[in-house]
Amino acid sequence: MTADTATLSNKDRVYIFDTTLRDGEQSPGATMTLEEKLQVAEALDEMGVDIIEAGFPIASNGDFEAVVAVAKQVKNSVVAGLARAIPADIARAGEAIRHARRGRIHTFVSTSPIHLAHQMRKTEEEVLEIITTTVTQARGLTDNVEWSAMDATRTPIDYLARCVELAIKAGATTINLPDTVGYAIPAEHEEMFRSIIERVPGADKVIFSAHCHNDLGLAVANSLAAVRGGARQIECTINGLGERAGNAALEEIVMALRTRADAMPYHTEIESTHLSRASKIVSAAANFPVQYNKAIVGKNAFAHESGIHQDGMLKNAQTYEIMTPASVGIKETTLVMGKHSGRAAFKDKLRELGYDLGDNAFQEAFVRFKDLADRKKHVYDADIIALVDDEVGSVGDRVKLVDMEVVSKTGGVHRCTLKLTIDGEPVEASFDGTGSVDAIFNAIKVAVGQQPHLVLYAVDGVTGGTDAQASAHVRLEMNGRLVSGNAAEPDTLVASARAYLNAYNRLLIERGASAQGALAG
Amino acid sequence: MTADTATLSNKDRVYIFDTTLRDGEQSPGATMTLEEKLQVAEALDEMGVDIIEAGFPIASNGDFEAVVAVAKQVKNSVVAGLARAIPADIARAGEAIRHARRGRIHTFVSTSPIHLAHQMRKTEEEVLEIITTTVTQARGLTDNVEWSAMDATRTPIDYLARCVELAIKAGATTINLPDTVGYAIPAEHEEMFRSIIERVPGADKVIFSAHCHNDLGLAVANSLAAVRGGARQIECTINGLGERAGNAALEEIVMALRTRADAMPYHTEIESTHLSRASKIVSAAANFPVQYNKAIVGKNAFAHESGIHQDGMLKNAQTYEIMTPASVGIKETTLVMGKHSGRAAFKDKLRELGYDLGDNAFQEAFVRFKDLADRKKHVYDADIIALVDDEVGSVGDRVKLVDMEVVSKTGGVHRCTLKLTIDGEPVEASFDGTGSVDAIFNAIKVAVGQQPHLVLYAVDGVTGGTDAQASAHVRLEMNGRLVSGNAAEPDTLVASARAYLNAYNRLLIERGASAQGALAG
Repeated sequence: MTADTATLSNKDRVYIFDTTLRDGEQSPGATMTLEEKLQVAEALDEMGVDIIEAGFPIASNGDFEAVVAVAKQVKNSVVAGLARAIPADIARAGEAIRHARRGRIHTFVSTSPIHLAHQMRKTEEEVLEIITTTVTQARGLTDNVEWSAMDATRTPIDYLARCVELAIKAGATTINLPDTVGYAIPAEHEEMFRSIIERVPGADKVIFSAHCHNDLGLAVANSLAAVRGGARQIECTINGLGERAGNAALEEIVMALRTRADAMPYHTEIESTHLSRASKIVSAAANFPVQYNKAIVGKNAFAHESGIHQDGMLKNAQTYEIMTPASVGIKETTLVMGKHSGRAAFKDKLRELGYDLGDNAFQEAFVRFKDLADRKKHVYDADIIALVDDEVGSVGDRVKLVDMEVVSKTGGVHRCTLKLTIDGEPVEASFDGTGSVDAIFNAIKVAVGQQPHLVLYAVDGVTGGTDAQASAHVRLEMNGRLVSGNAAEPDTLVASARAYLNAYNRLLIERGASAQGALAG
Repeated sequence: MTADTATLSNKDRVYIFDTTLRDGEQSPGATMTLEEKLQVAEALDEMGVDIIEAGFPIASNGDFEAVVAVAKQVKNSVVAGLARAIPADIARAGEAIRHARRGRIHTFVSTSPIHLAHQMRKTEEEVLEIITTTVTQARGLTDNVEWSAMDATRTPIDYLARCVELAIKAGATTINLPDTVGYAIPAEHEEMFRSIIERVPGADKVIFSAHCHNDLGLAVANSLAAVRGGARQIECTINGLGERAGNAALEEIVMALRTRADAMPYHTEIESTHLSRASKIVSAAANFPVQYNKAIVGKNAFAHESGIHQDGMLKNAQTYEIMTPASVGIKETTLVMGKHSGRAAFKDKLRELGYDLGDNAFQEAFVRFKDLADRKKHVYDADIIALVDDEVGSVGDRVKLVDMEVVSKTGGVHRCTLKLTIDGEPVEASFDGTGSVDAIFNAIKVAVGQQPHLVLYAVDGVTGGTDAQASAHVRLEMNGRLVSGNAAEPDTLVASARAYLNAYNRLLIERGASAQGALAG
């Protein structure tokens, strides 16, 4: 508890429920590997998130394993697993979260007329029965049960009150009233919570929770309005990741409550200086770039980053800034390492950046760091973060890049010749394309004998300066599945090839398919 | 007026004041050329924006010329020019906006204690006097005067009321109470407007306006709260562009008012089907990519774009969608043109996309289109938009790319050899870099004999598919000035070189410097 919140009582404590790993990861193209999920979970745990929703255990074995792994790793946060109002879902979620020090089953059912009619095809009475049986089942597996009324904000208040009452009677300890479609406006959202809490027997024994989507740009305002109405848990994601326009952004909620504690006498236990780093980790893991003018964590969010100091800023920072960059963990980018930096210095730097690698991973990262330092005069924090994130993502790849040469001429030939290994076996290919990257991607497709659809290709310079490391992002789709890949390299073309292979390897891992379609077919 | 707003009376009309060209363009790195500003202004005018703030005429000759050019071009919107509370500013703004069919002078002064003490170094009484003299001066130049109380939300309400009263007495027709630092929360924002409007004599004769920044993620909610409190003008920007975390996003405000007209009985005259296109135009002009999960205009904002249709969506779109993609002008990307398309078809397509090019610009665009169609099987709408936007930006360049060859090998050499013309004179250079893009940028620097600092380098694929056109973005800084450049090409390396030159040419235009520093020095 920080000094400025010490005087606030526990009834003003707002619990932060982060669903980056569940609702965020469900966002098209934001799929994360197990390693990435564990890295995100660690960042959330360390920053003081109260509840981490780690996944949807029944969805796939991969999801189940991820929830188990997060449950085993997390030290302080409650770990939640999602379940539909179906006995098999709840049983599977119970199995996954029993590995946690503190686990929670989060079960939901639709309550709005439109969902009942079109998605559930159930009557109101049938849904009431389902609530009782499913919450009772969940409560038999753990003491910590959250029940959600999907599409609550489009549910008539009388029926919603009946549902909530039954869920509490059946043992739910947290009641979540989500704005599933991002439809609410602050005043009515506040009123919904106030009304339900006032009229439902037993409401004072549970925690009410808001879960807002940002379709109309109101997710943060609605979350804060819910707190005014009596909610004491907010469900949110780092960077506002999530389906469609995303969820309420954790960093905005935390900083709004902190900056305007005078007007909103509530507090969270989030360590705000971790926000900037958490944003970078999630952005890299999900391959969702954060826009420059994103509140709190965008590159332009603080004037001091612009390089242009306004007159007023020079006279007094408070003239234009209501928060300090340091309060969200933004430090000036510092020149940190060069080719003469040794193993110990590199280990210290990794620790400072929040990484704790095993011996093998450390060794591989160090080799790549020395290689980078040979080619690049200045190695910045961001380079090291990119390098390590890239390292973590490429362990166990079946298809690897050995060698590549690209020759590219304006108005003429763009030719790529490359060598790969597929499960250790060398394969070569060569291809002419309409551009150099096109040639590279086509050569890879020839080598692996498959034709995934390229959904997205993007590159950004990780750091300033002429020898900027390039970070490439590729999103591929094959047979209805979407995967993303990243790589950071001094050369844009090599980064592009590695990012493509990184994505392609994910297609292989998750499907267990033959690495070389041509050989298999 | 649309059918669903026809029953609402004029007192429920909310005027949309767009400041993309002033507060948006002021954002670090978002500098636009005159051509880009005119293109943005045209899009705003056509979509029904009530007031376009076109710039800050006293800031520079370029800004003055831009306001004049926008004023001459715009057909329906009021065109506003910004002025500090300084006689020379107001005179200059008056000069610029008299070219408009309907012009407005927008003058502002700080009113908060912290701004008075640190930025203005004036007493409250001195500021009151300034308000009277400056608004009187502006009103002498035009009937349409907006006065803003900078940092209104951190100004004590009694003093704010005195300021507003004097501004109205001196002839202001619009009173803006900005949340300059993004500090407000909705309930208090609503209350500030209600209180000022109730207590200030003459408040019923003017329009009150909100201007919100998004530092805490609350800009849209605060804008809507202001309307509940009595404001009838909202100042906002496309994509929420603006300093720090940006301004309230126009598209979110418009769609929130439209989608929740049941709960918020106010209406705007914005044609919402133009929103998606306006977002793309501003994003390209300002070089600010829109994040995938941005509300309304992000790639993921509508589920149907994800390629993954949820069960519920298939049964009934309303289950998960509160707005249709068509309502904001999103169409499925369609295959539109190929190498056999002729001049007339290309002209029709440009008109459909909202472009109206002069003969020379059309001819150049057509040549590039045919060239693109030769190299690329499918030419999509987005390709044509990129091509035309690129064309518009490159007219009058002093430094041009003639020829380039890049040879790139993993772990080895990255060599670029290129030919440029500088004011028509051929120059050649060759350079080895740590990567292929690094080699290109270094070769250009050698050729032009100057060393601008590379602030940003990014590439994104404009359309899906393996022969995606690459859109490259470069931001350069030299002697404290920041410029951006774009280019779209099938080849990433050529796009990168052209984007670099596009930015470099802007450095030359705006400074009138020698194109080849080495020759000049």
